[in-house]
Amino acid sequence: MGLSSTEISYLLETAVVAARLAGQRALEELRFVHTTQKDADELVTQADPICQKIIVDHIKENYPDHGFLGEEGHGGKMFKLAPRGEQGIWWVIDPIDGTNNFANGLLCFSVSIAALQDGQPIVGVVFEPATDSMFTAAAGMEAQMNGSRIQVSRQDLNRFACFGIESYLTAEFAKPYQAIMVKTRFRCLGSTALHLAYVAKGAMVGSVTIRSRLWDIAAGALLVERAGGFVSSPDGKSLFPADPSSYQGDYLPIVAGSLKKKEEILEFFQMK
Amino acid sequence: MGLSSTEISYLLETAVVAARLAGQRALEELRFVHTTQKDADELVTQADPICQKIIVDHIKENYPDHGFLGEEGHGGKMFKLAPRGEQGIWWVIDPIDGTNNFANGLLCFSVSIAALQDGQPIVGVVFEPATDSMFTAAAGMEAQMNGSRIQVSRQDLNRFACFGIESYLTAEFAKPYQAIMVKTRFRCLGSTALHLAYVAKGAMVGSVTIRSRLWDIAAGALLVERAGGFVSSPDGKSLFPADPSSYQGDYLPIVAGSLKKKEEILEFFQMK
Repeated sequence: MGLSSTEISYLLETAVVAARLAGQRALEELRFVHTTQKDADELVTQADPICQKIIVDHIKENYPDHGFLGEEGHGGKMFKLAPRGEQGIWWVIDPIDGTNNFANGLLCFSVSIAALQDGQPIVGVVFEPATDSMFTAAAGMEAQMNGSRIQVSRQDLNRFACFGIESYLTAEFAKPYQAIMVKTRFRCLGSTALHLAYVAKGAMVGSVTIRSRLWDIAAGALLVERAGGFVSSPDGKSLFPADPSSYQGDYLPIVAGSLKKKEEILEFFQMK
Repeated sequence: MGLSSTEISYLLETAVVAARLAGQRALEELRFVHTTQKDADELVTQADPICQKIIVDHIKENYPDHGFLGEEGHGGKMFKLAPRGEQGIWWVIDPIDGTNNFANGLLCFSVSIAALQDGQPIVGVVFEPATDSMFTAAAGMEAQMNGSRIQVSRQDLNRFACFGIESYLTAEFAKPYQAIMVKTRFRCLGSTALHLAYVAKGAMVGSVTIRSRLWDIAAGALLVERAGGFVSSPDGKSLFPADPSSYQGDYLPIVAGSLKKKEEILEFFQMK
């Protein structure tokens, strides 16, 4: 069931307010971070569930029937609550994307909130509290940062073009990563959502994350697409529709960039 | 000739004000960046010389006899003005460290200002305007961020410890870089001075930059040392005293980290 542009605007406004409330709280929580190890590769802090609750509570006030998929549930698992309304809207939330940075006092972290209908992101917000950067996008609307239109880069892939990579070097992706690192000026900020927002803004010519989950990418993917870019798996397949009801937290590798550079960027990942 | 702690405090205060003035201007200049290519690897924007002039002018008001070494001179060369006073103090300045980020609208850039006497940094300031983070250190004083004491990390080098690397992969350093990237959670923010500031703060367990120049590292090096860390060349040699009067812009590779992890970190660079 399609939503009107007014309904989509209300969803977006709700996401923006929720992201700002959570981001402000995250900055306050930075002063006394308590960190525990979630699994072999990930940390969690006291701030992650606190910020997620702020987001979910704010959205529920406006949309009590909507569903929720969040990174932070009980016992290191995800949080899931199915929608009840006939619109079937899911909110997909990462309260602190870049938890490892947050835990260490490195300020590159972001709040990521998306609304999905029929598995497609229709609203996406990425907020970087430390720089007060609010990235927004919605179906049928332009991508913006702090209210001004943003667009993907027109730059060539060269030594002056920033390309976001993640901090994992696995054998499978060693060659593509090395090629990217030699050809471009790679960056690794440690937040997938922020990399996608920076691709949408044109500050990065592209980005890749292999170990990303739905809550890391749902908002950023819409940002990139509404800013004139593409997102796909490394082998060029669509990432959406995604099904939050059956999603179990598996990795959704994502490559993003300018639509005009899609073939050139995806060529990196044909090297194996 | 040794300076009193009052004299050093005045130098530090001068550097802090200069860094803040320049950083605020840099944020304003972000709205309409004009970029030109300085050489094969580096960009320069209209903001670099503007911000350097703000810093030099402010320091000159307080210290008309001091010397200056800055990244931005005429025709892509450095700026150098020898000191006249008998104190022989040089100010070593990078108005925008992370110019490539700045040029692309990526907010990780910093202002770096150091004062050197007898070739040793005695005052060091790194300011990140986008997050309003002012990192300060001076001879005989503790390192601080926004007025609170900072110390290097006590973390082990593992997959949760952030380690700053630069965006260059050369054959000579391929093995050490790869070892760091596998063992730690590497980050590449694109500003050497900011990496050093984050090492001082304990947000990064260590950092390495090969293609750094004196103005990228003079302030950050003092920050790390006053926060309980070490800086050295990759083969463990001292970087100071440095001689600004004879300095021609050659690379000064730098490794930084906690003093307790010095041997473990330098071991990476024995792999060749």
